[in-house]
Amino acid sequence: MKIYNSPMAPNPRRVRIFLAEKGIQVPYEDIDIGKAVNRQPEFRKKNPLAGVPVLELDDGTCIAESVAICRYFEELHPEPPLFGVGAKDRAIVDMWNRRMELALFIPTADSFRQRHEFFKGRIRQCPEYAEVQRQNAEDSLKWLDTELANRRFIAGDKFSIADITAMVAIDFGRISKIAIQPDQKNLARWHAEVSARPSAKA
Amino acid sequence: MKIYNSPMAPNPRRVRIFLAEKGIQVPYEDIDIGKAVNRQPEFRKKNPLAGVPVLELDDGTCIAESVAICRYFEELHPEPPLFGVGAKDRAIVDMWNRRMELALFIPTADSFRQRHEFFKGRIRQCPEYAEVQRQNAEDSLKWLDTELANRRFIAGDKFSIADITAMVAIDFGRISKIAIQPDQKNLARWHAEVSARPSAKA
Repeated sequence: MKIYNSPMAPNPRRVRIFLAEKGIQVPYEDIDIGKAVNRQPEFRKKNPLAGVPVLELDDGTCIAESVAICRYFEELHPEPPLFGVGAKDRAIVDMWNRRMELALFIPTADSFRQRHEFFKGRIRQCPEYAEVQRQNAEDSLKWLDTELANRRFIAGDKFSIADITAMVAIDFGRISKIAIQPDQKNLARWHAEVSARPSAKA
Repeated sequence: MKIYNSPMAPNPRRVRIFLAEKGIQVPYEDIDIGKAVNRQPEFRKKNPLAGVPVLELDDGTCIAESVAICRYFEELHPEPPLFGVGAKDRAIVDMWNRRMELALFIPTADSFRQRHEFFKGRIRQCPEYAEVQRQNAEDSLKWLDTELANRRFIAGDKFSIADITAMVAIDFGRISKIAIQPDQKNLARWHAEVSARPSAKA
């Protein structure tokens, strides 16, 4: 198996961190998204929506979507669990991971994608929406700071995929000047802790 | 347990169809989203992001996010499987469900939310983006028609949560005039089949 990767993009980083937490080694093949190799017909056979990462299995099956890839590895290598343990806990982790995607990752990505030169001609851009989503992302950071007053990690007392999604989103926000504010001390404490894990460098 | 529901909104319909397919009965309590009851502090204690549906367990735990709720019931009642069987198949279903959310459900919802009177004052609207997302949703229908040339359901030869997400998205598209086109015969064939299932009325 191998993973089509990009060192620049935020989604592949989610999978790299996940695998580092699990101690799983998978060969990576970098796709030059700067040259839009992912948007060419050859790559679209692997993922019609043209995103990275893509996990290619030995039988040729291609699994796109970061969370689907992570879930696949969770099932093959359950330890340490990063999607929760037991039905209720797994539902809570899934809920928080989705909240981090919908309220933080997507708004942060849109702040960049909807106005940056890099995506010109690649997607239908809407610069007005980039600004709306920048404000939405800032609101989410404010809210997340209040949530983290009561617990160590995003989804509870254990590190999970929700922490990975949130950390990657926040780090990707730098390019759009979306940042943890000085009064968001719970969020800063959490961000320092997750960033200090060796996996954060993956 | 009970589920906070709305008969108008598309996300609760996803859960109702899922439970109907499983033959699971859960009491519903309708939340008046027309009067923004979901945005008031009392409901935000159950879901800070104010969305419906929310599953409230007997111990008071609240699970928001439709897919997290569905996955919880999949684990408690595995038959019939709607998230796939085995790690690889589950990854494929998860991938397709996410594709249907990201490329179809969210663009369709944005086409409505970003410009409709109903959401004025509820979210930061961006009418320009409503139009961009309408076009994106139409592109996705075109693409999905080609995908369905080769298989019966969205994620393969079995009905899955990906079909539920896609059907609910397409039906919700009517209000924004996003529709299956006359030449999209594979998509029309699939839509007729999934709409004829008794669960579609849930």
